[in-house]
Amino acid sequence: MALESTFTHLRAGQPTMVDITEKSPASRTAVAEVWVELGAAIIDRFQANDLQGPKGPVCQTAIIAGTMAVKKTSELIPFCHPLPVEKCDFTLTPTATGLCIRCEVSTTGKTGVEMEAMTGASVAALTVYDMCKAMNKGIRILDLRLLSKTGGKSGDYHADSRS
Amino acid sequence: MALESTFTHLRAGQPTMVDITEKSPASRTAVAEVWVELGAAIIDRFQANDLQGPKGPVCQTAIIAGTMAVKKTSELIPFCHPLPVEKCDFTLTPTATGLCIRCEVSTTGKTGVEMEAMTGASVAALTVYDMCKAMNKGIRILDLRLLSKTGGKSGDYHADSRS
Amino acid sequence: MALESTFTHLRAGQPTMVDITEKSPASRTAVAEVWVELGAAIIDRFQANDLQGPKGPVCQTAIIAGTMAVKKTSELIPFCHPLPVEKCDFTLTPTATGLCIRCEVSTTGKTGVEMEAMTGASVAALTVYDMCKAMNKGIRILDLRLLSKTGGKSGDYHADSRS
Amino acid sequence: MALESTFTHLRAGQPTMVDITEKSPASRTAVAEVWVELGAAIIDRFQANDLQGPKGPVCQTAIIAGTMAVKKTSELIPFCHPLPVEKCDFTLTPTATGLCIRCEVSTTGKTGVEMEAMTGASVAALTVYDMCKAMNKGIRILDLRLLSKTGGKSGDYHADSRS
Amino acid sequence: MALESTFTHLRAGQPTMVDITEKSPASRTAVAEVWVELGAAIIDRFQANDLQGPKGPVCQTAIIAGTMAVKKTSELIPFCHPLPVEKCDFTLTPTATGLCIRCEVSTTGKTGVEMEAMTGASVAALTVYDMCKAMNKGIRILDLRLLSKTGGKSGDYHADSRS
Amino acid sequence: MALESTFTHLRAGQPTMVDITEKSPASRTAVAEVWVELGAAIIDRFQANDLQGPKGPVCQTAIIAGTMAVKKTSELIPFCHPLPVEKCDFTLTPTATGLCIRCEVSTTGKTGVEMEAMTGASVAALTVYDMCKAMNKGIRILDLRLLSKTGGKSGDYHADSRS
Repeated sequence: MALESTFTHLRAGQPTMVDITEKSPASRTAVAEVWVELGAAIIDRFQANDLQGPKGPVCQTAIIAGTMAVKKTSELIPFCHPLPVEKCDFTLTPTATGLCIRCEVSTTGKTGVEMEAMTGASVAALTVYDMCKAMNKGIRILDLRLLSKTGGKSGDYHADSRS
Repeated sequence: MALESTFTHLRAGQPTMVDITEKSPASRTAVAEVWVELGAAIIDRFQANDLQGPKGPVCQTAIIAGTMAVKKTSELIPFCHPLPVEKCDFTLTPTATGLCIRCEVSTTGKTGVEMEAMTGASVAALTVYDMCKAMNKGIRILDLRLLSKTGGKSGDYHADSRS
Repeated sequence: MALESTFTHLRAGQPTMVDITEKSPASRTAVAEVWVELGAAIIDRFQANDLQGPKGPVCQTAIIAGTMAVKKTSELIPFCHPLPVEKCDFTLTPTATGLCIRCEVSTTGKTGVEMEAMTGASVAALTVYDMCKAMNKGIRILDLRLLSKTGGKSGDYHADSRS
Repeated sequence: MALESTFTHLRAGQPTMVDITEKSPASRTAVAEVWVELGAAIIDRFQANDLQGPKGPVCQTAIIAGTMAVKKTSELIPFCHPLPVEKCDFTLTPTATGLCIRCEVSTTGKTGVEMEAMTGASVAALTVYDMCKAMNKGIRILDLRLLSKTGGKSGDYHADSRS
Repeated sequence: MALESTFTHLRAGQPTMVDITEKSPASRTAVAEVWVELGAAIIDRFQANDLQGPKGPVCQTAIIAGTMAVKKTSELIPFCHPLPVEKCDFTLTPTATGLCIRCEVSTTGKTGVEMEAMTGASVAALTVYDMCKAMNKGIRILDLRLLSKTGGKSGDYHADSRS
Repeated sequence: MALESTFTHLRAGQPTMVDITEKSPASRTAVAEVWVELGAAIIDRFQANDLQGPKGPVCQTAIIAGTMAVKKTSELIPFCHPLPVEKCDFTLTPTATGLCIRCEVSTTGKTGVEMEAMTGASVAALTVYDMCKAMNKGIRILDLRLLSKTGGKSGDYHADSRS
């Protein structure tokens, strides 16, 4: 874990938006991933009800909620800059006990879309929780993290493989 | 993990809001918790800059963003009912490598506030990520879960101790 | 067409919210309907791609967008009162040349949910337009109207059969 | 009715935002139109109360609500891209039995503003309905359609005359 | 100026929402007032253009923006509780050099609507500023204050006459 | 007070958004200022509780609420164009009886950010009011005005010194 710089959102001890007026617009992407641990019983229920895994109504609702949340990121995170979302793509992969949600966002702007990707993955996971919680309140949303970012002066970032 | 019922948000294969017209208003609470793994270097930086741990500007910004997100829950989660939030309380506890965020929400309404508590904890954690990401893009948001809910006909719920 | 009263939203020539402080909370419902004329070619394409008519992704996206719009009604219509939506149900029925969208909303409140049902049907129809417009920009959204309302002092309303 | 292409918002059976990262910004306009059938009695009432037809408070409220809805389009329609609205102009034309609402929107962006114009016309019409519904719940909102779009690689579009 | 109590929004040095779970719903009203100093030249222009003083399009736009802002208060002010607005009434009174804007709000709820009235007056004033600023960037928005509040356990409040 | 032009937001007597399609993007800034008269007793209480004047939780909450309001300006003011906020900086200066709030906003866009700066200052002041109103309902928000704007074809503006 490299310590790149210091708190960019603080100025004289007060929180503040980072000034990006002098930055140049660039193509930027970010990918975030989260894991929803649903338990085998819910996964079985998905199959028994022919909910078609990643194409069924639970997953489609999660994709739509996540996409709308990506567009709302700067309303949710106080010091996020508003950015024109140009691409927003979700991939949901079921396994035996849960669902892996990946959210990829692209923009052309003066700052990156890491928070958009993280927020989209997070709200998609919360939506899955909401639609399954009547069956299991113990569902956990595990390990939300940034997988990669590209574009911009600060360089690209690629997370290590999951350890 | 008990399997209480089936998909309440599906009707004839389509997603839908649960009908709560016949339910009675009741006092309801929910508590959610999430863990943000910041890494020791950021925690050290908090202390070196006298950011006062849980009372400093990073935590205050997270509390405010989380509170505002609790009030936005029904805008974010497609089939959540709007509820009048009457209490919303955050507790942030730092440790050697990260921050534990707990969000408690109360209402008087026809359905519970589990999603409000989960959403509040989630957005508070994303805000911490945003304010620290210049120092470490590898921050992880781990183990978002419901700790408890009370009130309403479906009974109380208390999560097992963290295993 | 009965002329029941005069402009309730005007006071001394200025627009204004209707004062409902003295009204009593009651169970209220409203149903609105709209017709989207897609053309036979798009309906054929639905079937050829196995999009499963009313359960496919176009219809599910419309239902989700419509449900979220129902909850946003008082943000969109300037003098609408905010109301707690307790039920919101969509029915989409395809025919040979288009889609009939019906939206039913219920609340317990001091005023009715006609605007919620009308707004929900309208945004669901716009979403269908959006998802099909690459195939046909000439899609028309026809005959949005209130089918019925129940509850409240002003009495029930049922539209005549479509003439 | 030409069938130009296929479902742009579906990828592997799931709904998704169209990727516009590779498109070029261009000047774009769209015009939408809708007809509100109020009935002669309400139109008479407009005149008897000196509500000045298209300049009176009902129409002004509709214009303002419509303009604000144009700016909210990407919040309402799940897969719409956010665009910087640079012009938004409404024309309301009363006739003997109703009101014709036309909404013109312009932007400089990577995709078109058809949905913005359609959404603006739609919410303006809903606002007229709201302000007149105490007099006639049978008001119908008829024939919302795109009149034209210009700009962008997919070429201009002009609707046929109303048949 | 009486010092009634201490900071209700702080708990252990952190900002927090006030807990109103134990309070009883009651009828509550609040009235706020603000003065917009436009300058005589703009007031003359209002008259020369037959903009009808308080009924013209500038004032109607201010009323609509103010009403919509009243409904958004809990989204804008971080620790405000959401409340069902049941009445929202604006009075605009022009004088020789400006405009006095008064906003009255009523609810039935567990806490008061002071912030709703203050926010409504404030946004109505900002809207007047926006619509007149091309003529005079030196417009001032002066003396926004609470005129009165009624209802609830903390008792009624009536401001002294303007000194 | 110079009378620069006429009502830019009216067209044929109706309110309308200004058409900026032909304008060129430029760097633009605006600074607004407002004074909150809290009374000496609250200022004393700030000090007695070690709330650290401008860095304490009241001021931080005001900064966050103000920043989020700057980003919401085009949602609040009906005919404001949406603009990408690139910088948003608050300065809060306490004196013996109150707090001076200054808000500076920058963008690269086709129109100015005067309304963003005015709205940010206004909502920050309302937030201070909200957090202190339990101690004094007589707090006044005085003299909100534009201090300066730069950039764009209409030239720079600098307010006279406070008279």
